[in-house]
Amino acid sequence: MALIVQKYGGTSVGDVDRIKNVAARIKASRDEGHQLVVVVSARAGVTNELIARAKALNPRPDTREMDMLLAVGEQETIALTAMALHALDVPAVSYTGAQAGIFTDLAHTKAKIKNIVPTALRKDLKAGKVIIVAGFQGLNEQGQITTLGRGGSDLTAIAMAAALQADKCEIYTDVDGVYTADPRQVKDARKLEEISYDEMLELASQGSKVMQSRSVEFAKKYGVVFEVRSSFNHNPGTIVKEEVAYMEKVVVRGVAVDKDQAKVVISNLPDKPGTAAAVLRALADANINVDMIVQNVGHHGVASLTFTVPKEDAHQAVKILPATFRKVGGGEVAAYDNIAKLSVVGVGMRTHAGVAAQMFEALAEKGVNIELITTSEIKITLAIARDRADDAQRAVHAAFGLGKPA
Amino acid sequence: MALIVQKYGGTSVGDVDRIKNVAARIKASRDEGHQLVVVVSARAGVTNELIARAKALNPRPDTREMDMLLAVGEQETIALTAMALHALDVPAVSYTGAQAGIFTDLAHTKAKIKNIVPTALRKDLKAGKVIIVAGFQGLNEQGQITTLGRGGSDLTAIAMAAALQADKCEIYTDVDGVYTADPRQVKDARKLEEISYDEMLELASQGSKVMQSRSVEFAKKYGVVFEVRSSFNHNPGTIVKEEVAYMEKVVVRGVAVDKDQAKVVISNLPDKPGTAAAVLRALADANINVDMIVQNVGHHGVASLTFTVPKEDAHQAVKILPATFRKVGGGEVAAYDNIAKLSVVGVGMRTHAGVAAQMFEALAEKGVNIELITTSEIKITLAIARDRADDAQRAVHAAFGLGKPA
Repeated sequence: MALIVQKYGGTSVGDVDRIKNVAARIKASRDEGHQLVVVVSARAGVTNELIARAKALNPRPDTREMDMLLAVGEQETIALTAMALHALDVPAVSYTGAQAGIFTDLAHTKAKIKNIVPTALRKDLKAGKVIIVAGFQGLNEQGQITTLGRGGSDLTAIAMAAALQADKCEIYTDVDGVYTADPRQVKDARKLEEISYDEMLELASQGSKVMQSRSVEFAKKYGVVFEVRSSFNHNPGTIVKEEVAYMEKVVVRGVAVDKDQAKVVISNLPDKPGTAAAVLRALADANINVDMIVQNVGHHGVASLTFTVPKEDAHQAVKILPATFRKVGGGEVAAYDNIAKLSVVGVGMRTHAGVAAQMFEALAEKGVNIELITTSEIKITLAIARDRADDAQRAVHAAFGLGKPA
Repeated sequence: MALIVQKYGGTSVGDVDRIKNVAARIKASRDEGHQLVVVVSARAGVTNELIARAKALNPRPDTREMDMLLAVGEQETIALTAMALHALDVPAVSYTGAQAGIFTDLAHTKAKIKNIVPTALRKDLKAGKVIIVAGFQGLNEQGQITTLGRGGSDLTAIAMAAALQADKCEIYTDVDGVYTADPRQVKDARKLEEISYDEMLELASQGSKVMQSRSVEFAKKYGVVFEVRSSFNHNPGTIVKEEVAYMEKVVVRGVAVDKDQAKVVISNLPDKPGTAAAVLRALADANINVDMIVQNVGHHGVASLTFTVPKEDAHQAVKILPATFRKVGGGEVAAYDNIAKLSVVGVGMRTHAGVAAQMFEALAEKGVNIELITTSEIKITLAIARDRADDAQRAVHAAFGLGKPA
């Protein structure tokens, strides 16, 4: 008998029929003899409806009231899920975040979990009940309801698995697991049986948006092994864990593409200290996330700066920067919003040379031009033209032999 | 500066625009210098939607889970109302039933308030904040969310007014107050400025369904004076309080009509002890509420029994009774679903004779036949043909001079 924490996302519990489906899956796990703690999200769409109503009343709603409001989404789902289980003769009891003993800091709408005191929950678990916990929410030391921000329900599940020292943690979502590349673009993309936390983090931040980084980081910190799998079929998913020895042998684990990028080129900047900093500060103040920064050292007293931004921020960057140019005494800006980022990720890169060379060769063969390059210990990212991204992904996927069975 | 408890029902907070309207009213009261504790219901329709989802998953949902589910309706409204107040620069803070210190017994879906410990609430009140409290919900001693059943938000407001020793309690609803008769039927029906708890109770149970009886009973028990008024206009409402001396002078305070009634006539019952009891037990077991019972003593060994039931229960009564007749050795049943109940109510009746005579004369003049009669200390109720109910109401209203200014 194992203690399993399961998490079902908003799409998985999106309506009455899907809640029935989830209840049937929970019952099946229980019939195998397991103890179950199940974390559920709000029904898909509910959170957005609540936010729309809030914004209609107040364009900048108070964060404490926002948490009071948003917490109802999950509270509805836990009750409905428990009722669906009762209809299958499975004893089940719902827990709000507060009742489950999930204590957070004071930061409303983006609270961090401080500790979990699952005393009541353990008692019900011992009594043979399935525990249904509201994801995304907790209680702060002032007795106020808090929410954990984006990806909060995943975090609830992983933190609960850590607190209960669960034997397994299963994150059910609308994808099958983590693939070597986007299966819609790369025919022979393969689902990974296992992946390390670090690889998962790099893939997630690059468009394989299976999970928010913070949940993976939390799992890594507390050593929670979890499996990402689909609630719509019974395929095995991808197990995410600390790297193990054999992982080193595989150099590249996966390819990720993010097509919603733009390149911003700033030229004719005065080549003096603090100019680049002023530009980046202006962008940060406008909440524009800058990535892949390349600065060219100056010629003839002028310098240039190139970086990528999310496509939707490119226009805003072009609009705000001239004010900075006036302050620093010069500069021009141009944006190109037809950019994609292509990354290869693998912990094996740490000990293998030549990955970049192999990647560049594969792209050169296809005539794909590389505009920007950044590298980390376990990742190489290239900015390329968006219309070549699918071709490039396939070429790189093939070059590293990712499509072949492991 | 007065401490005022206000309550806004589901229609008053039915959508974003109505919540804005409520916020403006709250602001206006506060601008007059008052301290405010505001109880709100779930948006109209929300509770029914939640119940529908629950029933789709489980025809007999667990009551503890039902409370977990239904409590979200009010939790949404308190947050939205607080946000709407913030948009008007009014400091406001929302409280769930649990946070407001509303402690109940263990009876899920129909909990009774045991006590209120508004410690946190008082602090915020003192700090100048408007307090928005979720109606209809509380917390039991096991830390579980409970709900108070039908009319629960009115009860929250009245109990909160008692606990805080509020100076005023205003129940905002979609009617203007309590009238001497139904204004849609009786042109010169007059809104009552004041009414006693007992009169309110008798009128409420007879179709003037402004409030559930339990809230009025609670107010009577704790001496909470409250005003029933509309959230859609600024007319003064009706103040409900313990009877005062001058009330005695007015014999009849109001007329009420309930048209959704049926008459059930049982004849040829064996005239022996326990027969009527067996009939009434069978009806009670089928959850059929029987009223205005008249038993005729037997002739020739048979007796008859006549009573009224809500119209929708008449068919069920006819269906189940033959089984009882077989057990007791005889009986026949017939139902007439074209019945209305007409009542006159007034605490002055206690000390005035002749009210019944005056009522009967008014009806005789209009040729209205009286089928059944019941009386209490402060009420006389007659069963009459439904198609004569409006005429009869007007005649009685006129006979007691209710249309004239007091």
